[in-house]
Amino acid sequence: MNNLNDEIVYGKNPVFELLKSGKPVNKVLLLSEGSNGRNQEILSLLQERNIPYQFVDRQVLDRLTQRERHQGMLAYVAAREYAEVEDILALAEKRQEDPFILMLDEIEDPHNLGALLRTVDAVGAHGVIIPKRRSVALTGTVAKTSAGAVEHVLVARVSNLVQTLKDLKKKGCWVSGAEAGGSDAFKADLTGSRVIVIGSEGKGISRLLRENCDELISLPMKGRVTSLNASVAGSVMLYETLRQRLRSR
Amino acid sequence: MNNLNDEIVYGKNPVFELLKSGKPVNKVLLLSEGSNGRNQEILSLLQERNIPYQFVDRQVLDRLTQRERHQGMLAYVAAREYAEVEDILALAEKRQEDPFILMLDEIEDPHNLGALLRTVDAVGAHGVIIPKRRSVALTGTVAKTSAGAVEHVLVARVSNLVQTLKDLKKKGCWVSGAEAGGSDAFKADLTGSRVIVIGSEGKGISRLLRENCDELISLPMKGRVTSLNASVAGSVMLYETLRQRLRSR
Repeated sequence: MNNLNDEIVYGKNPVFELLKSGKPVNKVLLLSEGSNGRNQEILSLLQERNIPYQFVDRQVLDRLTQRERHQGMLAYVAAREYAEVEDILALAEKRQEDPFILMLDEIEDPHNLGALLRTVDAVGAHGVIIPKRRSVALTGTVAKTSAGAVEHVLVARVSNLVQTLKDLKKKGCWVSGAEAGGSDAFKADLTGSRVIVIGSEGKGISRLLRENCDELISLPMKGRVTSLNASVAGSVMLYETLRQRLRSR
Repeated sequence: MNNLNDEIVYGKNPVFELLKSGKPVNKVLLLSEGSNGRNQEILSLLQERNIPYQFVDRQVLDRLTQRERHQGMLAYVAAREYAEVEDILALAEKRQEDPFILMLDEIEDPHNLGALLRTVDAVGAHGVIIPKRRSVALTGTVAKTSAGAVEHVLVARVSNLVQTLKDLKKKGCWVSGAEAGGSDAFKADLTGSRVIVIGSEGKGISRLLRENCDELISLPMKGRVTSLNASVAGSVMLYETLRQRLRSR
């Protein structure tokens, strides 16, 4: 039914989004006592899609989620299937839009990745590229923080970010790396086929990757702190890109 | 030396920013083994400012921070002094700028408040207004997540947000509430004396407060998720306000 390779997804909205997405779900655990309107809706979906479910005690869910906020619902899904970079480019082509891609260099905090996936979905970007090594993967915490966005956003995991970036440049993408000391992001042109690169929480963009960016851009910093939260910095850049794309139509 | 009313601040950058800010610090605890460059710099500051410090075991810091990432440093500070709304307006006047204020309606997650304080500092806004009840206060986790911004940003805690908003409107501030279904924030005019209101993570802006906003604004949502992370939504609004203020100069 569920095996060691299964990912878990928990929280009402994430489980609900997962079930609506039509992706394969192996099993759902529900809290016996927590029967409310939303639960009924989920039970209908489970029965409709013929997905096995089981009522369990709070302790079981607490243990499986390591006491994160599961809100009485947990789903086992087959290990997350990552997309290919080609799928992301194909999505842009299908929508007849210039590619709009986020590349994340070694993001470590699952809450940051989750919040970023939520923003990527919101700005209508075509996908996210993360490295196979030294990066958080699509875990249950990422799924939960993403408020369901993880089910809709294409995420490609590649062995070599620099090589991937070079390939994307050959295909006509311009690459803007978010880095302190870059030119003012509000004055940069972020329209057209675009990859936005965001560095890790502590170290920024790694040297080789930075050297392969077409330009470095920064948000104005008017105060005394020298950096923003990584998901905030990335999200402001993504929204500025969307703002410019909408204006340039 | 340290008493029950003391707040704790932990993490290398937050403790360092705290010491640089010149605020009263009651005592600092340091991890015995973690002696590196940054530690030496902090020891010099401690000796210079004549602040008592003590080397302790990792378990002590783990316990006091409830296993949050303390990075071997913790400071006891007198309970955080909140600013008054008048202080925030006075800061704007001193800088000869139109007031630029963030009002947070019942934010519950300390990580969201911390990330928002960091952005408030970065965009050069004059302060933050939070309610006394049903809101996270300036705790150690907020301080840590704010990367030191908590030491620089004026935070006023008021009994009645609606009354405070009415007072600010009488003083010439325009109030933009961030709410789903509002008009496009990128098309709104966010310049001039401005209060940005952000609602709580789950419920948005409460009814009475929403009714006292001059306008409701939203970020474009192109995907399938219906909301952003609260600190992301607030930060994108703050940066859009800064962008417009810089352009209108």
